[in-house]
Amino acid sequence: MADQARQQPTADSGAAFVTPRLAEFLVRSRWDDLPDWLRHEAKRALLNFFGTSLGGCRDAATERATTVLARFSGRPEASVVGRSERLDMLSAAFVNAVSGNVFDFDDTHHPTIIHPTAPIGPALFALAETRKVSGADLLHAFVLGVEVECRLGNAVSPGHYKRGWHITSTCGVFGAAAAVAKILGLTTEQTVWALGNASAQSAGLVETLGSMAKSIGVGNAARGGILAALLAETGFTGPAEPIAGPRGFTPVMGDNADLNAITGRLGETWELASNTYKPYPCGVVLNPVIDACFELRDKVAPRRDEIAEILVEGHPLLRERADRPNVVTGREAQVSAQHSVAVVLIHNAAGVVEYSDAYVNSADVLALRSKVRVAEVPDISVDGARVTVRFADGSTETATVANARGSLARPLTDAEIEAKLRQLARYGCPELDPSPLIDAVWGLDRASDAGAVMALTRPAR
Amino acid sequence: MADQARQQPTADSGAAFVTPRLAEFLVRSRWDDLPDWLRHEAKRALLNFFGTSLGGCRDAATERATTVLARFSGRPEASVVGRSERLDMLSAAFVNAVSGNVFDFDDTHHPTIIHPTAPIGPALFALAETRKVSGADLLHAFVLGVEVECRLGNAVSPGHYKRGWHITSTCGVFGAAAAVAKILGLTTEQTVWALGNASAQSAGLVETLGSMAKSIGVGNAARGGILAALLAETGFTGPAEPIAGPRGFTPVMGDNADLNAITGRLGETWELASNTYKPYPCGVVLNPVIDACFELRDKVAPRRDEIAEILVEGHPLLRERADRPNVVTGREAQVSAQHSVAVVLIHNAAGVVEYSDAYVNSADVLALRSKVRVAEVPDISVDGARVTVRFADGSTETATVANARGSLARPLTDAEIEAKLRQLARYGCPELDPSPLIDAVWGLDRASDAGAVMALTRPAR
Repeated sequence: MADQARQQPTADSGAAFVTPRLAEFLVRSRWDDLPDWLRHEAKRALLNFFGTSLGGCRDAATERATTVLARFSGRPEASVVGRSERLDMLSAAFVNAVSGNVFDFDDTHHPTIIHPTAPIGPALFALAETRKVSGADLLHAFVLGVEVECRLGNAVSPGHYKRGWHITSTCGVFGAAAAVAKILGLTTEQTVWALGNASAQSAGLVETLGSMAKSIGVGNAARGGILAALLAETGFTGPAEPIAGPRGFTPVMGDNADLNAITGRLGETWELASNTYKPYPCGVVLNPVIDACFELRDKVAPRRDEIAEILVEGHPLLRERADRPNVVTGREAQVSAQHSVAVVLIHNAAGVVEYSDAYVNSADVLALRSKVRVAEVPDISVDGARVTVRFADGSTETATVANARGSLARPLTDAEIEAKLRQLARYGCPELDPSPLIDAVWGLDRASDAGAVMALTRPAR
Repeated sequence: MADQARQQPTADSGAAFVTPRLAEFLVRSRWDDLPDWLRHEAKRALLNFFGTSLGGCRDAATERATTVLARFSGRPEASVVGRSERLDMLSAAFVNAVSGNVFDFDDTHHPTIIHPTAPIGPALFALAETRKVSGADLLHAFVLGVEVECRLGNAVSPGHYKRGWHITSTCGVFGAAAAVAKILGLTTEQTVWALGNASAQSAGLVETLGSMAKSIGVGNAARGGILAALLAETGFTGPAEPIAGPRGFTPVMGDNADLNAITGRLGETWELASNTYKPYPCGVVLNPVIDACFELRDKVAPRRDEIAEILVEGHPLLRERADRPNVVTGREAQVSAQHSVAVVLIHNAAGVVEYSDAYVNSADVLALRSKVRVAEVPDISVDGARVTVRFADGSTETATVANARGSLARPLTDAEIEAKLRQLARYGCPELDPSPLIDAVWGLDRASDAGAVMALTRPAR
């Protein structure tokens, strides 16, 4: 095996060992092998997911997807987060992945920028509503699914996203298939088939971002992952090497993929260590800018009418991604430094409400954002920013942030993730009391029935 | 508009006119605009599809997909070809696309090698079982769906398939979305969204060919096309230019795509003119070889024990794709010249039965195929072949075929497509009388309820 691992895969050999090795790792992995911090991180990721899913459960994309899929739903066996409908397992997984990701407020894996949980969490919880799955088994499968998803992402990054692949969707379907395969107890061969059945469904284009179509990719990743594993369980065969074979995932959808990123140190390093949780529902490059504006707010707000200019300085990526003075919709505003600065200085908040269409087009926001200028300072890191407010009398106030809240260097605390969930529940599903849900997620490793958590995501009727 | 069409799309402009132009064409197209030959060709394609679908309706991939999807099926509103189950529209479309394509015996578009009908026909017929759709409207939508699918294929060929994209699946979802959008009567803007919703689902890898996983791509193309259009109908938005935008279908999944192949001469040329129907359930390069063996059979069969060698000469592609003396499974035999020669000379037939595992491993086939040698003759066209049988006494028999049956130059006749359907029905669904189905397809342009055809694809219980 060690010799095989060192062998350089070629088109002819079909690199016929990446998928089987991954599958073998999945089959052999035991809950007892997982360190405590990893188990805890899994719960943080799921808690964050339930927050963003509650926040997005009545977004138009979620509404419309639910309406259409409900027409074709089989037995109402699985819950839809924040909603009264129940759908079949596949459709529920689809809709919950949509609501969890619709605002891009869900977790982010570095450096791939995969949102790891949206495709995997919903697949597992839907499955857990149809058969008895312990909390530990669900957490274990979740960790493994994230591992597969993010390792594939690492292998094809950064070229894959740059070319235009919506990496959360394309890699997510493999992660969901792997996670469900673990719960189903598939053999190594069946797990290879499950990953092959996933490979036939890997899809999603960056062009769809900013429209509802993005959500189809994410929803299908969750749904397709379940389907891939269920089919494999019945003996529905896939190719021997769907990931690294000559016409498999990495050659076709990646350029110069690093296969060692998939199989190297399996079980020794864990990708959830590189997962982060966003404090604000906007592009991650804006986080330090918003932090700086919160620091300035008390000093600046009383003198708002005197502001002559606001200079935002940051890494070149900040200007490239977020220098957008003229935005019209909430979705566009999520990548606008101008809008973000204005809402924090005016409203002292940067939540989902502040990124709604109404706020974007309010007169005071329009007036203030016109004074915001973005400048590149190459020696500021992508996690940092400096904001300087200059008043009409020439005086200035400056705030500098080295590491944004929510970055790997300054992760959200457990309490902050809870608070985020409560805020999002108030926004998207105000009739739900989120406390039992929060308690249930923290207690998941001791729960005998993980599926029972889902009842706590639904409002009383 | 003419100026726009000549303008070279750039990453900045987002080539923002390919998808809208296509959508406008779809919306404006009228049944009366379609020439008679085109209407007839649509019926030939659908008849051929029902044949291959009946042939594949009990294949293991179809069985297993049906079993799994039936667990999640909603209202049993749509028929599954050749089977007693009824499923919801989305699942029925999936399964029928699987059965239609599982043997790769369905129609083939040149030069893309797309199998055009499998993703589109099933989507339309499933829809037609849930609402009243006239035969003319269905045929019209089918023609338009094939047009979109194959034009996209033309734009990205040959690089797309060569890289490893299963082009039937990747382009099929756009074709199905376009066809369903036409039936739903979507506006131009909604049709753009439908194509955008399709773009988020374009998937399928060549690596999966030879395994059941291939069928997931094809099934999803049909299912995803319906979903894309139904979502668009509810206002589920997609991007403005999902096909040619900088991170859209052609830049991401094609290299140097020819956008003019998508929008040039729309409504003047029709891709169904380049559609062909296979006479034999094997790789298309083998067709002239099999034709030659049928010519030789009567002379050669009585002297089978005296055969010293069989020389198969053809285009270099024949040797590249089909020089496979040692095959074990029926699926592998579909691309073996050795097996194909042996079964025709022994059994005087080359149908699905002759490509089953049992035939591949029978003693007489094994003995004869060991005498077959494949040689390249560059000046024989890919549609032609020469087969020479040399006997122990030095005498020879030769047959030369310039254009294989089923090629564009020598298309199957209507009667041959009917005979193919009857043969496949006997194989896959012997309890069905196929005559009413055949009559219904030929009469489709005058039928008030296209969905009624589907009842004729199901065996009496």
